[in-house]
Amino acid sequence: MTKNTKVNAAILIIGNEILSGRTQDTNTSTLAVWLNTIGVKVNEVRVIPDVEKTIVNTLNLLRKENDYVFTTGGIGPTHDDITAESVSKAFGVKYEIHKEAFKILEAYYKPGEFNEGRQRMVWMPANAELILNPTSGAPGFSVENVFCLPGVPSIMKSMLGSLKNRIIGGEPILSHTISLRTVESEIANSLTLVQDKNKDVEIGSYPFFHAGKLGVSIVLRSENQSKIDICNSQILEFIKEKKIEIVDR
Amino acid sequence: MTKNTKVNAAILIIGNEILSGRTQDTNTSTLAVWLNTIGVKVNEVRVIPDVEKTIVNTLNLLRKENDYVFTTGGIGPTHDDITAESVSKAFGVKYEIHKEAFKILEAYYKPGEFNEGRQRMVWMPANAELILNPTSGAPGFSVENVFCLPGVPSIMKSMLGSLKNRIIGGEPILSHTISLRTVESEIANSLTLVQDKNKDVEIGSYPFFHAGKLGVSIVLRSENQSKIDICNSQILEFIKEKKIEIVDR
Repeated sequence: MTKNTKVNAAILIIGNEILSGRTQDTNTSTLAVWLNTIGVKVNEVRVIPDVEKTIVNTLNLLRKENDYVFTTGGIGPTHDDITAESVSKAFGVKYEIHKEAFKILEAYYKPGEFNEGRQRMVWMPANAELILNPTSGAPGFSVENVFCLPGVPSIMKSMLGSLKNRIIGGEPILSHTISLRTVESEIANSLTLVQDKNKDVEIGSYPFFHAGKLGVSIVLRSENQSKIDICNSQILEFIKEKKIEIVDR
Repeated sequence: MTKNTKVNAAILIIGNEILSGRTQDTNTSTLAVWLNTIGVKVNEVRVIPDVEKTIVNTLNLLRKENDYVFTTGGIGPTHDDITAESVSKAFGVKYEIHKEAFKILEAYYKPGEFNEGRQRMVWMPANAELILNPTSGAPGFSVENVFCLPGVPSIMKSMLGSLKNRIIGGEPILSHTISLRTVESEIANSLTLVQDKNKDVEIGSYPFFHAGKLGVSIVLRSENQSKIDICNSQILEFIKEKKIEIVDR
């Protein structure tokens, strides 16, 4: 299979609890880091409420604009879990019992425990492909380029392994970080010159406070290691001239 | 001043470092919690890259659809800080030196230290209003209903106090949480009945793992305390019937 060099994705975080600030989303960074390792770049993240119309419209936009869409949240057994039904509507397919998911959960629970609430979790868009859940039984699912994962971070993370062969990424996005004991304004001009000479490398500059001290991390990102290396050496050059200390970070 | 009962906002997180997963965004929850206390509900969050066209287009959409837009990131001194210039383009106004911001930073730095890099931080959209920065000098700014804040969480947070009188919220959004030693599927049906009887209260159900044990937090949200109380008593009723333990969480 020929690798496309640029493969991108959107992440759609579904859940009122993130929008209210009650819950700190961590799924974005987990997904983004994992996607980078398989050569998929995250273009955009959206956080939206548990509102069917919003989910349907947002999903229909994102799935056309991106190679992949990953959703998290809203696939549990309670009334506010409306992702599966919304995805069915977005694709214009039936929302129905997924036979394989039914079998998995029937076997997962003790006899008599696979109650009505739990059975809600096997309702999915017609022809959905399952994403197996090694942690708590209830599978996620995918339809075309849309992959629906649960919101609980540890469960979500445990399901990524089984997805690896279903996502066709491009070249992995490599990165290199140089952390400095300085402030951004001391290096801003030199860094601009390096960026101008290295258009293909994404150079980010991020101030940090650590152990009571100020610093800046410069992050170089590219699919091409030699381009990163060239950029890195140009940065090391001006750092040396300016006598700026490199720190561990 | 008459209070509008529904005031909403969008949060626009600008920065490649969030999309790459390198940096965990925490500004969303800080902003959302603070906005709730002043009666502003977050409708939507978007994370976008440091790309001018994307910033301009997204901002022009969000500022029309929401009462307020809060951006974080991209207002520092380096080449990848393009928020101020992009906001100028979004509003079709000049990008120029803000005289008051210039004076603030000139006074903030020691003589000779207000260099070219730092001067970049006083370039803003024409007629921007400053958002003072008690932590590190460089102000944020607002144009109409768009408020631009820095990305560094501690600095961003320190600037919210001065904004309070510039945001006109509705009724504060109240919430009440009941945490239970149970799993969602045990309470799903009862909770659906309560939601059906209390359409005006947003009822969320969130599983958690804590100290090795499973639990569920039920969160009730409304502008009306008595509606929350009614909803709460109906939930306590079915919890008692089901002999489910209430836990601290």
